[in-house]
Amino acid sequence: MDKDIFMELLQAREYKAVRSILNVMNSVDIASLLSKLKDKELALAFRLIAKEKAADVFSEMDGSMQAYLVEIFTEMELREILDALYMDDTVDMLEELPANLVTRILSNVSPEKRDKINILLNYPEDSTGSIMTTEYVGLARYATVSQAMAHIKKTGIHKETIYTCYILEARRLIGIVSAKDLMTMDDDMTMERLMETEIISVHTHTDKEEAARLFSRYGLLALPVLDDGERMVGIVTVDDALDVMVDEATEDITKMAAMNPSEKPYFETSVFQHARNRIPWLLVLMLSATLTGTIITKYEAAFETLPLLVAFIPMLMDTGGNCGSQSSTLVIRGIALDEIHFQDIFRVMFKEFRISLLIGIVLAAANGLRVYVMYGQSDMALVIALSLVVTIVIAKLIGCVLPLLAKQVQLDPAIMASPLITTLVDTCSIIVYFNIASRIFHLG
Amino acid sequence: MDKDIFMELLQAREYKAVRSILNVMNSVDIASLLSKLKDKELALAFRLIAKEKAADVFSEMDGSMQAYLVEIFTEMELREILDALYMDDTVDMLEELPANLVTRILSNVSPEKRDKINILLNYPEDSTGSIMTTEYVGLARYATVSQAMAHIKKTGIHKETIYTCYILEARRLIGIVSAKDLMTMDDDMTMERLMETEIISVHTHTDKEEAARLFSRYGLLALPVLDDGERMVGIVTVDDALDVMVDEATEDITKMAAMNPSEKPYFETSVFQHARNRIPWLLVLMLSATLTGTIITKYEAAFETLPLLVAFIPMLMDTGGNCGSQSSTLVIRGIALDEIHFQDIFRVMFKEFRISLLIGIVLAAANGLRVYVMYGQSDMALVIALSLVVTIVIAKLIGCVLPLLAKQVQLDPAIMASPLITTLVDTCSIIVYFNIASRIFHLG
Repeated sequence: MDKDIFMELLQAREYKAVRSILNVMNSVDIASLLSKLKDKELALAFRLIAKEKAADVFSEMDGSMQAYLVEIFTEMELREILDALYMDDTVDMLEELPANLVTRILSNVSPEKRDKINILLNYPEDSTGSIMTTEYVGLARYATVSQAMAHIKKTGIHKETIYTCYILEARRLIGIVSAKDLMTMDDDMTMERLMETEIISVHTHTDKEEAARLFSRYGLLALPVLDDGERMVGIVTVDDALDVMVDEATEDITKMAAMNPSEKPYFETSVFQHARNRIPWLLVLMLSATLTGTIITKYEAAFETLPLLVAFIPMLMDTGGNCGSQSSTLVIRGIALDEIHFQDIFRVMFKEFRISLLIGIVLAAANGLRVYVMYGQSDMALVIALSLVVTIVIAKLIGCVLPLLAKQVQLDPAIMASPLITTLVDTCSIIVYFNIASRIFHLG
Repeated sequence: MDKDIFMELLQAREYKAVRSILNVMNSVDIASLLSKLKDKELALAFRLIAKEKAADVFSEMDGSMQAYLVEIFTEMELREILDALYMDDTVDMLEELPANLVTRILSNVSPEKRDKINILLNYPEDSTGSIMTTEYVGLARYATVSQAMAHIKKTGIHKETIYTCYILEARRLIGIVSAKDLMTMDDDMTMERLMETEIISVHTHTDKEEAARLFSRYGLLALPVLDDGERMVGIVTVDDALDVMVDEATEDITKMAAMNPSEKPYFETSVFQHARNRIPWLLVLMLSATLTGTIITKYEAAFETLPLLVAFIPMLMDTGGNCGSQSSTLVIRGIALDEIHFQDIFRVMFKEFRISLLIGIVLAAANGLRVYVMYGQSDMALVIALSLVVTIVIAKLIGCVLPLLAKQVQLDPAIMASPLITTLVDTCSIIVYFNIASRIFHLG
């Protein structure tokens, strides 16, 4: 839908047309269209959305739009929206709202719902508890297929998903039945006979990234969440797991480029916030690069005698940095995908060692040849070739080991990515280079 | 399940125990357990899996295990597995198998299925057609809920998902009904009244990454796929979309670290293949770093007069590189998530310009001060501070512009990431640095 046409209709008070447009649009697209409107138009347009769709659209909006609407809603409007919102969407919204609006909302829900909301709000941000919802279909062990179907027909509309049903006994999860089974099996079969008992579940305190990985490993649509007493308290649905995976990949990529991750998309983050996210790491890295500089001054005598030595510093530093970040990137991603673990450290090192020898020889040959042809100095060619091989081996070993060590001491492996590796490798490559040069040219 | 215990039971011919274990295990976990066995044991263990589970386990195996099993299967075993496999899993397998086994399989399926397989095999690797399946539930416009349920009961078991049903007329998709609607609505309601007509669909040639993005944007469970004549030919399910998202993120991350992406996980890729994936970019980058080196030699006179100048080269190069890769990373990710487009280029540049000024001032102040305190030279402090600000502004502009330009000329923006940006920025920072130094110190 074109924003300008929509605005014109709205300003011309063609409410019937606007309503028809909103009726045929998808909730996600409506939310994105409304995000381009000014506050007053937003309120007007939102009130033209059909009631059964309004909560859906509301849950797709970003925090600032929700805050504005909550503020201007009448008590009745607010209660209608709150009744229709799923628990996880309600909690997501509350986490973004200012305190006075949170109070307003909590005073408009039933005491029972308020208690549930408060529990969900208390889960740590990274935990599965923070993304789960409490609306799921629970069934009894001896219910038949037709009883189960009748139960779903009565209550299902308020559940976030009805495609996975949970068989409970004394609040403990004893089995899982899919809607597919219910729809294709005989009416009088009991849940006990139908249910799968190989249950994949997580706890409220499980890392949400870990929960998301289970969706991709097992191709799940929903995942049951248990509390510490092994009682079932909620589910995570696949759409939320997908969001977690996308967000986590973004977070990793951002950290790997030496930035603190931003909560919001690029354009919604202010210039000041962008600068704040980027400066700390730059300062740290600048400091360690300074170390490299200080080391260079130690070899002043060498490059005063042989100024050509300076010309190869960028190439050595860059190649070392690139080699190191290749290895660290693969290891960081392998850790994130649960393919590489700390106990694999020697296997990884041995593999990277062999890879780095192969790469080192190829690059050393290419570069040695180039130096020999360009400058006609076989000594210099030898220095460059040797330095390259040693630097590449060191770079790859540092690159693969650091992320694994970080993981082991509970740090995020993603911070051990190219920027940090690059500065570390720089120091090594300079030391290697000048030492080799000093020996071969009998300097200082 | 512990591999060793499983092996012992297998070798002791405790087939009953093995069968029981396989009965309670999840197909994904069985496939992963079996991947640790030797060929002969694999065949033995696979034949102990219950028939209704075998195809599931088979579809979770990697290519080499599937190839081995297809080779040793009897005609009957092969046909049983092929009948139970979904179309997309069959095609995935065929793409990995050697030609003689492909022939064996194609001669074991019905001519009708063979035609379908051949069509699916012909879709380009990156297209939605290559990940779709042809097994979905199609319903007629005037079918009632109870007719629809009866149809699903009869045919649903062979469909990859029955949770989204497609209302077709002359093979054209006219609406969508969810299983949730079927299960909660009155028996005599027709599909025409129930169906949603705001349909989100893709074409067979749509990029599969684009299709995956629609799942995350709209929270879909399945996505219908149309051919060029707008006829419905298949669906993509959310589990396959999840795999695409994970693979694409891995591919982007790998490319951003200057490597050709690998088809297989880290440990399954050979040392030689790893080296082959990494060497080409290293050579390219080495070449461009050589340029920086050549430029340095032009300023030989400068650093012969003032050797201290060399000490700051690593810090300037690293900081410039890091600043540039921060910007390029955010832009590359923004493009991948469809948040930043080419027409935003000036908005991005203006934003990065302001950010880089802020960062430049902070880093210049910190470093200028440090140089002044350490060396007591205000001139040198000024040179460093000025060079830093200019380098950071240039780095951030190069970093944000190149990925957008790459996207515009149909290149993958991910190749414009830190390694390439770093080498480009290096050259700029050296030129900036020595020019500023020459002026302030009145050198050469």
